[in-house]
Amino acid sequence: MKLKIACLPGDGIGPEIMSSAVQVLEQIAKSYQHDFTFSTNLFGGHAIDETGTSLPKETLDNCLNSDAVLLAAVGGPKWDQGVERPESGLLRLRKSLNLYANIRPVDVYDELVNHSPLKSEQVRNVSFVVVRELTGGIYFSEPRFHNENEATDTLSYTREEIERIVTYGFELAKTRKGKLTSVDKANVLESSKLWRKIVNELSSNYPEVEVEHILVDAAAMELIRNPRRFDVIVTENLFGDILSDEASMITGSLGMLPSASKSGKGPSLYEPIHGSAPDIAGQNKANPIAILRSVAMMLRDFNLVDEANSIENAIVNSINNGYLTGDLGGNSSTIEFTEQVVKELQFQT
Amino acid sequence: MKLKIACLPGDGIGPEIMSSAVQVLEQIAKSYQHDFTFSTNLFGGHAIDETGTSLPKETLDNCLNSDAVLLAAVGGPKWDQGVERPESGLLRLRKSLNLYANIRPVDVYDELVNHSPLKSEQVRNVSFVVVRELTGGIYFSEPRFHNENEATDTLSYTREEIERIVTYGFELAKTRKGKLTSVDKANVLESSKLWRKIVNELSSNYPEVEVEHILVDAAAMELIRNPRRFDVIVTENLFGDILSDEASMITGSLGMLPSASKSGKGPSLYEPIHGSAPDIAGQNKANPIAILRSVAMMLRDFNLVDEANSIENAIVNSINNGYLTGDLGGNSSTIEFTEQVVKELQFQT
Ligand SMILES: CC(C)[C@H](C(=O)O)[C@@H](O)C(=O)O
Ligand SMILES: CC(C)[C@H](C(=O)O)[C@@H](O)C(=O)O
Repeated sequence: MKLKIACLPGDGIGPEIMSSAVQVLEQIAKSYQHDFTFSTNLFGGHAIDETGTSLPKETLDNCLNSDAVLLAAVGGPKWDQGVERPESGLLRLRKSLNLYANIRPVDVYDELVNHSPLKSEQVRNVSFVVVRELTGGIYFSEPRFHNENEATDTLSYTREEIERIVTYGFELAKTRKGKLTSVDKANVLESSKLWRKIVNELSSNYPEVEVEHILVDAAAMELIRNPRRFDVIVTENLFGDILSDEASMITGSLGMLPSASKSGKGPSLYEPIHGSAPDIAGQNKANPIAILRSVAMMLRDFNLVDEANSIENAIVNSINNGYLTGDLGGNSSTIEFTEQVVKELQFQT
Repeated sequence: MKLKIACLPGDGIGPEIMSSAVQVLEQIAKSYQHDFTFSTNLFGGHAIDETGTSLPKETLDNCLNSDAVLLAAVGGPKWDQGVERPESGLLRLRKSLNLYANIRPVDVYDELVNHSPLKSEQVRNVSFVVVRELTGGIYFSEPRFHNENEATDTLSYTREEIERIVTYGFELAKTRKGKLTSVDKANVLESSKLWRKIVNELSSNYPEVEVEHILVDAAAMELIRNPRRFDVIVTENLFGDILSDEASMITGSLGMLPSASKSGKGPSLYEPIHGSAPDIAGQNKANPIAILRSVAMMLRDFNLVDEANSIENAIVNSINNGYLTGDLGGNSSTIEFTEQVVKELQFQT
């Protein structure tokens, strides 16, 4: 298969883990005889420094003309006080690529279960997916403004926006354990009332999927109390932001979780959920597992299932062979871990 | 001291734990020679059944004419599909009493540390307070509506609303460990930008208080990763709803946490943070600790410090003597636990 991949290394540890991802993709291309081409694009803080904007037009054009976008990480204290923050580029990228569905699988490696802040028996075998609406709601609705004396944000959703993300959730649940948990605040918010109504309407198309509604405050508790109860969680943009970060922390594998953001048409975007970790940038210490799993998600979306599995197996084998970066209590460098994964891939195929 | 207390037993286990609270207050009145009078008021689902509204005018008037309001719990599946839900009475009560500051202390009983879903070493000695804005933001701002095809909620704050709650947070931090964590989503929300600005302005009045800003998604992680880092958390209404529920779950003592909601002028409201637990209602099984600690918060606010301490000590002693309700793995009934606390109080004074 021929794939044009737009790479956005970004800031902090971004370039280091991107290099790891590209090496692994090159090995996959070699082993399975694919033709992957990579373009490297300015994005985030570095783009602000060099071009004055976090999402230069050239980068956006390049993303739109690629089959997939791979993003490492953006942001850092350096740009926190600036006129433009790296985050605004991320929001514009999501909107421009119409990436309405943010998919975050949350699952715990058995080998790393004791890294969780939760008791092992709480998190063992946890495996669910958060499906977060990513291009609507309070992130984008108008009016939004603030002055010295007041501030307003607006949370609007149309039926179409809700239907397409909820449908995504149902379709995904169908391929998994068949349970959809819709999170809202229907006892307070009008948008949640419409949301819940639409979930109930759509559920008649999916008799095989069990649906539950849960309030966002209760969901924040349940993620800790009984994370195994979840299969697919579907929710709006801001709730998804909060809950998916909470969810990733319960696994104790925050540095290891991947994500995909999809539009249906056009290229999807794949990125680790962790940040740019400026404190360890440039030190060859970063854990590349999250971006490698993001790469695996990408390959799976192109139906390259064996390729995706081989990356995931290579990661698990490397862990089992004691290759652990500092965040996991080991002392492998980013480069060493990557080389080990590449070796595993060569060995497997 | 003479205190007029408006009691709102509400639904589910509400009446049982309210009875426990009143017995303890009566013992305090006896031991310390106070004059407490109690009125019992219809509120919540029961009020809907009997009067058609969850907050009858008589109840509101009675609350306004009391020194303090003690609420047990409202709601239940019975009223979930009705035209009016019990929650709406709660929101109207908050607004009518101008209860802008919701105070939720989160601390872990050493004796119960292993009830937490988190590892004991994560939660031992956790002690912080969530200060949640309770009468503004997306809960109350206009426009808010939904129809078949779209829905809108509005999140507005005025400078005054933000200043008074943030000031509350600073004042509280001054009396504790001197650290204020302000939670917002300033990388996305306009209201959070104003919020953060005001926190920074006010901080110059409190040089002795260390201030940190943290994004709501990061806060959801930090509550699990390192809850001991917090002293006072101040945040807006919806973030406070989500985070305070999450926070209470990490202690594993959800059924034991109290809260106060304050207006500055007029009566404050005290209530357990747990719900009405319809599944065990009427079975003499409910854990009354949360409402008893709410009573202690109330007494403390009237400067009845010895009285408050004696209740808290009586609770700890009862636990240490093996009086535990079912939720804590014991088999004491609500009534037995209450009697034991009353005995401890008689013994102490
Ligand atoms: C950086 C920020 C704007 C972003 C968000 O809130 O969506 C981030 O927290 C995320 O979850 O991807
Ligand atoms: C019942 C509901 C409206 C309420 C809220 O969201 O404020 C509750 O969750 C709470 O935290 O007191």
